[in-house]
Amino acid sequence: MPVNEQKLRLAVLQIRTETDYDQTMEKAHRMLAEAAAGGADIAVLPEMFACPYDRAFFKLFAARGHEETVAALAAWAREFGLILVGGSVPEREGDKLYNTAFVFDAQGRQLARHRKVHLFDVDLPGMCFHESHTFTPGKEVTTFETPFGTMGLAVCFDLRFPELFRAMAVRGAKMIFLPAQFNLTTGPAHWELSLRSRAVDNELFMVGASAARSVGFSYECWGHSTVADPLGAVIASCDETEQILWCEPDLARIDTVRRQLPTFLHLRRDVYEVAR
Amino acid sequence: MPVNEQKLRLAVLQIRTETDYDQTMEKAHRMLAEAAAGGADIAVLPEMFACPYDRAFFKLFAARGHEETVAALAAWAREFGLILVGGSVPEREGDKLYNTAFVFDAQGRQLARHRKVHLFDVDLPGMCFHESHTFTPGKEVTTFETPFGTMGLAVCFDLRFPELFRAMAVRGAKMIFLPAQFNLTTGPAHWELSLRSRAVDNELFMVGASAARSVGFSYECWGHSTVADPLGAVIASCDETEQILWCEPDLARIDTVRRQLPTFLHLRRDVYEVAR
Repeated sequence: MPVNEQKLRLAVLQIRTETDYDQTMEKAHRMLAEAAAGGADIAVLPEMFACPYDRAFFKLFAARGHEETVAALAAWAREFGLILVGGSVPEREGDKLYNTAFVFDAQGRQLARHRKVHLFDVDLPGMCFHESHTFTPGKEVTTFETPFGTMGLAVCFDLRFPELFRAMAVRGAKMIFLPAQFNLTTGPAHWELSLRSRAVDNELFMVGASAARSVGFSYECWGHSTVADPLGAVIASCDETEQILWCEPDLARIDTVRRQLPTFLHLRRDVYEVAR
Repeated sequence: MPVNEQKLRLAVLQIRTETDYDQTMEKAHRMLAEAAAGGADIAVLPEMFACPYDRAFFKLFAARGHEETVAALAAWAREFGLILVGGSVPEREGDKLYNTAFVFDAQGRQLARHRKVHLFDVDLPGMCFHESHTFTPGKEVTTFETPFGTMGLAVCFDLRFPELFRAMAVRGAKMIFLPAQFNLTTGPAHWELSLRSRAVDNELFMVGASAARSVGFSYECWGHSTVADPLGAVIASCDETEQILWCEPDLARIDTVRRQLPTFLHLRRDVYEVAR
């Protein structure tokens, strides 16, 4: 099927993670079938979509290995013939764990792997969390090629570091996927603000894919999956409940915006370093 | 007089620039006297505060030289015994012009000079402007020392480049002054968003000092001078009319925020370069 390289149909699967792994995986498969039936070219799952965001569960789910989940993501991408940004999983390598996002193409081939570079270590009023007690940080900037152009990939807390997004943009990323789980403190304060500002900093599309809120769980997720356009406008967003967020970003907007407000022409590599 | 290094009283002079130079300068002096009477430790003027933001005026005002304006700023700082962030002026050096901000201490000594690094060249619907037809860009990251700590300085369009602000923050800036003139297109789209995001990116105070709107002038300024705190919250802002915006930023907030949400500990210089 020929691809229209400018128009793409995007489905963000704002799934509510269950404590039962099989139940979550079955639900993810059902939501993906619905996305495919709706014509999605790309589907996006949230951070730790099949593993409750809690240190005890990280350990428990890591013990069973990530291979089964990653194999399922590859099989689903092939089954439904779409690009699948597979949220993230606790990835085990030797004695280390990473918070890792995998992307598969419509043939089930791995397109990208991003190990979260900036771990979520915070001590806010009502929100204390130290991801680095469990995980090792990644050390790569991640972009990948698709029929729609170059795309970028980062995970949650990575959003706070503009350098990482500039580095992806300089490599040609037109859209950056961010599986995430902001919470009830950082969500209202910074989720939309940061997605919009990374979009306008780099004049590209930002896709923030959150899990749905699990009321009463130790970590309550903010939800509100959001897509921001190259001028930083919100073009799709939702509340905190489980749902599919649909969006048809017009990639041609990027060239228009970069012609009108050509920030990339103004980058001053003689004054600061943009990226490694 | 001993300085309380954490509490400072800030006055942003949102002046409406007149086409008559002497009239604007007299008004700036009056507003500064009012700021001093109100107990300001630091007063901030906007970009091109004494020169209407229009290419014809840039040339006209540059022809008379910047020395008179800069000498007046130094004298005013000494007269009123406060730190004066003197907006910006068309600075002439040889056959080149710069859009330059000067800062003076309470003794009238020059603390800093920042030549706008990123010039405003845009071709938006209803807003076409090419600052680079008139000005040469600067090439320095600018910070300076005060009794309240290290401060940073940038001008208007510089705001769109997160690298410049990271570079100032890494040098220790606690507050960054941004004399500016966003307009009726870029203002509602990006002024508050960008000030808030630079503040939260770097967990410091951002002071956006705009000129007031001159209705009917070739370039209508957005106004809305704004101060954002280290979590990106707006702690002071106003409309587009001429006025003094008062604010008492609590600099101790910076340490608190950086302890709670320690993004600076997570900077990954092994993955990207932060600054030159």
